[in-house]
Amino acid sequence: MITGLSHVSIAVPSLESAAKKLKELYGLTVTEAKVNEEQGVRLACVELPNARIELMEPSRPGSPIAKFLERNPGGGIHHFCLNVDDVAAARVELGRRGARVLGEGRDQRNVHGEHIAFVHPKDFLGALVELEQRAG
Amino acid sequence: MITGLSHVSIAVPSLESAAKKLKELYGLTVTEAKVNEEQGVRLACVELPNARIELMEPSRPGSPIAKFLERNPGGGIHHFCLNVDDVAAARVELGRRGARVLGEGRDQRNVHGEHIAFVHPKDFLGALVELEQRAG
Repeated sequence: MITGLSHVSIAVPSLESAAKKLKELYGLTVTEAKVNEEQGVRLACVELPNARIELMEPSRPGSPIAKFLERNPGGGIHHFCLNVDDVAAARVELGRRGARVLGEGRDQRNVHGEHIAFVHPKDFLGALVELEQRAG
Repeated sequence: MITGLSHVSIAVPSLESAAKKLKELYGLTVTEAKVNEEQGVRLACVELPNARIELMEPSRPGSPIAKFLERNPGGGIHHFCLNVDDVAAARVELGRRGARVLGEGRDQRNVHGEHIAFVHPKDFLGALVELEQRAG
């Protein structure tokens, strides 16, 4: 079911200032931002050889990331993401095993068009975990 | 300086019950636990093909992980770890660039004997980030 670690995701108040800091301090390059209207986030990434660091800025007030930043104004780790071979199959199988997959069975896509789903933190040791199915 | 994503680390109240849950719900296998006395943690891992999920249980009251669990009794994401080619060199270079590396220049090792260091969350977008130098 789970095939690897896709990314760690950090909520930030500003993508631009986050990118500047990562470049200046660590020499890391952040990709161009894309907006996911459904989730209310602007996203950008650091591509490492084996995985990504994702940065998320709220694209509108009241979005889940905006609320996270109300509780953590400086930003912080929001979730991490595991690759799965098949999100729809994982959702069914996890439901059968007693893990709550959020979103009421609705098909969700990320900005790359890949199928995703989120597992309830209470069913992953207190961590918010995204499941992502590689495109193609 | 940074060569990849090593692991995501989750603080848990009990390694044994965490391992049981990850096996039952996700089919994931957790390695045998090791104790890091200096940090006051019992550690175990899920080895994924490209990176690890680390689980940390406090090995004594008052340790940093014990304090984290007082604030997050169900557990949660504690930090993530980036591979670097040389921890000592990274510490010097990051200090020069204005990032605070914790531990006052003291050489720290993980349970595998690898050199590690932690960056202050304020200097990594609110995330606690470990740096780890692969052995060998």
